[in-house]
Amino acid sequence: MTTLPIPPMAWDAWGDPERATPLSESQLALVHDALGVSAADVDAVPRNEVVLRPSRLTAGDVAALSGAVGAEWVSTSDADRLPRAGGKSTLDLLRRKQRGPQDAPDGVVVPGTEEEVLAVLAACGAGGLAVVPFGGGTSVVGGLDPEAGKARAVISLDLRRFDRLESLDETDQEAVLGAGLTGPAAERLLAERGYELGHYPQSFLYATIGGFAATRSSGQDSAGYGRFDEMVRGLRVVTPVGVLELGRPAPRTAAGPDLRQLFLGSEGTFGIITAVRVRVHSLPEVREYEAWSFPDFASGVAALREVEQLGTGPTVLRLSDETETALNLATVDEAGGDGAAPGGCFAVTAFEGPAALVPARHAATAAVFAAHGGTSLGEAPARHWAERRFDGPYLRDPLLAEGALVETLETATSWSNLLALKQAVSDVVAAKFGEYGSVSLVLCHVSHVYDTGASLYFTVVGAQKGDALAQWRDVKAAVNDVLMSHRGTITHHHGVGADHRAWLPDEVGPVGVRILQAVKAALDPAGVLNPGKLIP
Amino acid sequence: MTTLPIPPMAWDAWGDPERATPLSESQLALVHDALGVSAADVDAVPRNEVVLRPSRLTAGDVAALSGAVGAEWVSTSDADRLPRAGGKSTLDLLRRKQRGPQDAPDGVVVPGTEEEVLAVLAACGAGGLAVVPFGGGTSVVGGLDPEAGKARAVISLDLRRFDRLESLDETDQEAVLGAGLTGPAAERLLAERGYELGHYPQSFLYATIGGFAATRSSGQDSAGYGRFDEMVRGLRVVTPVGVLELGRPAPRTAAGPDLRQLFLGSEGTFGIITAVRVRVHSLPEVREYEAWSFPDFASGVAALREVEQLGTGPTVLRLSDETETALNLATVDEAGGDGAAPGGCFAVTAFEGPAALVPARHAATAAVFAAHGGTSLGEAPARHWAERRFDGPYLRDPLLAEGALVETLETATSWSNLLALKQAVSDVVAAKFGEYGSVSLVLCHVSHVYDTGASLYFTVVGAQKGDALAQWRDVKAAVNDVLMSHRGTITHHHGVGADHRAWLPDEVGPVGVRILQAVKAALDPAGVLNPGKLIP
Repeated sequence: MTTLPIPPMAWDAWGDPERATPLSESQLALVHDALGVSAADVDAVPRNEVVLRPSRLTAGDVAALSGAVGAEWVSTSDADRLPRAGGKSTLDLLRRKQRGPQDAPDGVVVPGTEEEVLAVLAACGAGGLAVVPFGGGTSVVGGLDPEAGKARAVISLDLRRFDRLESLDETDQEAVLGAGLTGPAAERLLAERGYELGHYPQSFLYATIGGFAATRSSGQDSAGYGRFDEMVRGLRVVTPVGVLELGRPAPRTAAGPDLRQLFLGSEGTFGIITAVRVRVHSLPEVREYEAWSFPDFASGVAALREVEQLGTGPTVLRLSDETETALNLATVDEAGGDGAAPGGCFAVTAFEGPAALVPARHAATAAVFAAHGGTSLGEAPARHWAERRFDGPYLRDPLLAEGALVETLETATSWSNLLALKQAVSDVVAAKFGEYGSVSLVLCHVSHVYDTGASLYFTVVGAQKGDALAQWRDVKAAVNDVLMSHRGTITHHHGVGADHRAWLPDEVGPVGVRILQAVKAALDPAGVLNPGKLIP
Repeated sequence: MTTLPIPPMAWDAWGDPERATPLSESQLALVHDALGVSAADVDAVPRNEVVLRPSRLTAGDVAALSGAVGAEWVSTSDADRLPRAGGKSTLDLLRRKQRGPQDAPDGVVVPGTEEEVLAVLAACGAGGLAVVPFGGGTSVVGGLDPEAGKARAVISLDLRRFDRLESLDETDQEAVLGAGLTGPAAERLLAERGYELGHYPQSFLYATIGGFAATRSSGQDSAGYGRFDEMVRGLRVVTPVGVLELGRPAPRTAAGPDLRQLFLGSEGTFGIITAVRVRVHSLPEVREYEAWSFPDFASGVAALREVEQLGTGPTVLRLSDETETALNLATVDEAGGDGAAPGGCFAVTAFEGPAALVPARHAATAAVFAAHGGTSLGEAPARHWAERRFDGPYLRDPLLAEGALVETLETATSWSNLLALKQAVSDVVAAKFGEYGSVSLVLCHVSHVYDTGASLYFTVVGAQKGDALAQWRDVKAAVNDVLMSHRGTITHHHGVGADHRAWLPDEVGPVGVRILQAVKAALDPAGVLNPGKLIP
């Protein structure tokens, strides 16, 4: 029994422990004064006192899995199980702080080839084991919950060994990337050849190519380069009934339904994605940045809408509401300030591409922004945003440690419904925290824009009161109900996982549920694949 | 028993009989001299001598269908059956020329509401009847073959009464269009409000919104406005197990697989599409046209590829090969000439959009074209192309009447494989016609371009030899085999229908077939919907 490579993120927090940053004095004061909580209220188990429930794998299970991948790639040790016990939602992080036995997969298996994945699925089907695929471990919707469903036990299937740039065709500007490549690893391999994928979600530093595909991830450059599902040209998927190669070399086809779209967003319930064929682009010739301030959120939204519907062509387009703007500017001021005007709503634009096109795109966008009352803040604040673009999640851990209840949640809706949905979510968060006797803070931004609508991304902060896990589940359920009743989607880019599963029937309707269940039954008759996630 | 409204196209030819154009003297000479055929070789049955096999509908069937939609919307008359007996493929047109009983649906039903569609499907399921959905009747892949499958008889379900612009949201730039609206009817309703859909396939004048969705249609402006499947935001579909409303108001979602993509391209086998929610755009502020000549096809392809991969932003981008250029210029010369240079490869560009962006897009595209050896032909030939853009199919009917065997076929592949696939298709067409002792002519153009590849559209002309139906099936099968062995798709935008169905397993693989069959079984357990099409 060996110890396997350990996922790079902290076992009980977001990201790299070296980059964890304490709260500033003013942030601490805000938490203590406004929320009335402090670190003294919070219990947290240290790593050396964490207890996992024992593995349920038998010697026979381990032998069968070892037969599939080699004994050196199978482990039932707690050291391997704990870092794969869940994702990085606030629920996950709160669970990691609990004394008493924590749940975790019963074992970890790390296959190196598609044949080995197929053999693992066969062994699991025969042995009554379930499989949770593991990429970067960044799920924030319970996608990694170690749930066995009807199986006897559950293993984590770590895809880290699918880590190659299999091919790059410079004529077609297409690359085949192993599912286990992290964002930075994939971009590094492409950049060596002068290409870029351009997918930068906040999870970029840790999340993997397979995970991006399985969850319909969306990156901060989506205005320019599209969502990850729009970058995908082909997929290789190992299902219990065979390997599927989807997407001929043809860029598009009318040969029936697009079956790739069944596996994009399938979250490990239909098969294990092992490789993804994506379009790439030449490293941009020119990059321009400009930050803006709008007098209010509504005028900023109107500007974003016009830019997107005219097709002026920004690569990044995002807008913070008044609260988020105020809090971020406070942070910026502490960091030395950027000369940004106080108040209003902060917006970022970036433009990447050929020198022959970028200036016209930038100028056309700026003209629309100015017409909607925007004031240019120049280049520096936008570059500052770009430099810090992956830092946001680090703030949550010290806030949780101080007794705050903090989480992000997101949705999308049509332009005409955007302000009403934002208000409805803010109202229900305030009302639910109020029921717990806590004030709350709701920050919001728009970071993904489309011709017909946009995303809304909320950061919610309140006080932990009693059982924080139950408290957050209660708040979140109320928010989800509001999303469904107010014409939002249950998730724009975090995925369904375990946490949103109960709302999926509302999203796709009874016939939609029937389709998902039929596909599931056809591909995974034994129910091996990620039970308790996605499929109602 | 009433007579229903008749579909507008000629019963035995493409389009409007008033617009049928005879061959010119030089075209006639070409056919007679090069192919050695003439009208004297061709038998064709006049309309008043056409015999349809008798309807198999019983009085009970008619009563049940009348109960679903009202007796005035049910017919078993030959006058209603014949114009819905098939589509407009060369096989269809040859079948229409046959003496002896022709196949046709056993009856025609024209529902007016979704409830009526649901009732028709229920009556058909209970009564052992199959349903072929009918929109514009423009299928060229056997999508309208009146096949009963395991059912006792088959009806044509005409969707013409779903002809409303249900809604248009100007903020969201989204419209809900009835599935039975033809292209021109939809554009007329949108234009009254200042909007455009921008979907202009060659079938535009007759084909319907529901058909565009069911077949993943692609229009001539796809470089600018996307394929039809990219325009769709939501669908309403009536299946035998219930009505499905797909696509929340959210522009995009990560809430699991995109089930809309199962119905786009489903060709009536999973359900009846009754309404489609599409993005629309403001009528363009500016339109610019420019035609080009390239020294050869390869340099033209390289130019198109660079334009698309740089994203310079043309709305129309197409390139004819040397043969198509030569023949089209011959026609142009007869029409008075355009001053176009002889020889080489003709290309068309068009640019539509805001005045602030179009000139930069046009200039960047022109720069790429010039760098690849292109010579500008100015605006006039491109405008001339735009004026004649829907006329191509009218040439086929007089050619068939003169004993030529003429048809179009299409595929798509990666840029790196485009020239090799074009050559392979041309070779196999020549070889197969050679087996029949006929010379042949293959014209080709690229009309849909993507970052990673492009379409190839072929027009094939040879001599009819003996049983022309069997001859064409033989030639086409050989072409299809070449598409599959040379990394093409079986269809880029015509669809699968009956004619490409045998090749779909090659396209999607055995697990893909299993998925399609599972969805079919879940939604249409009685096998009512369009038997013999698409699903292997």
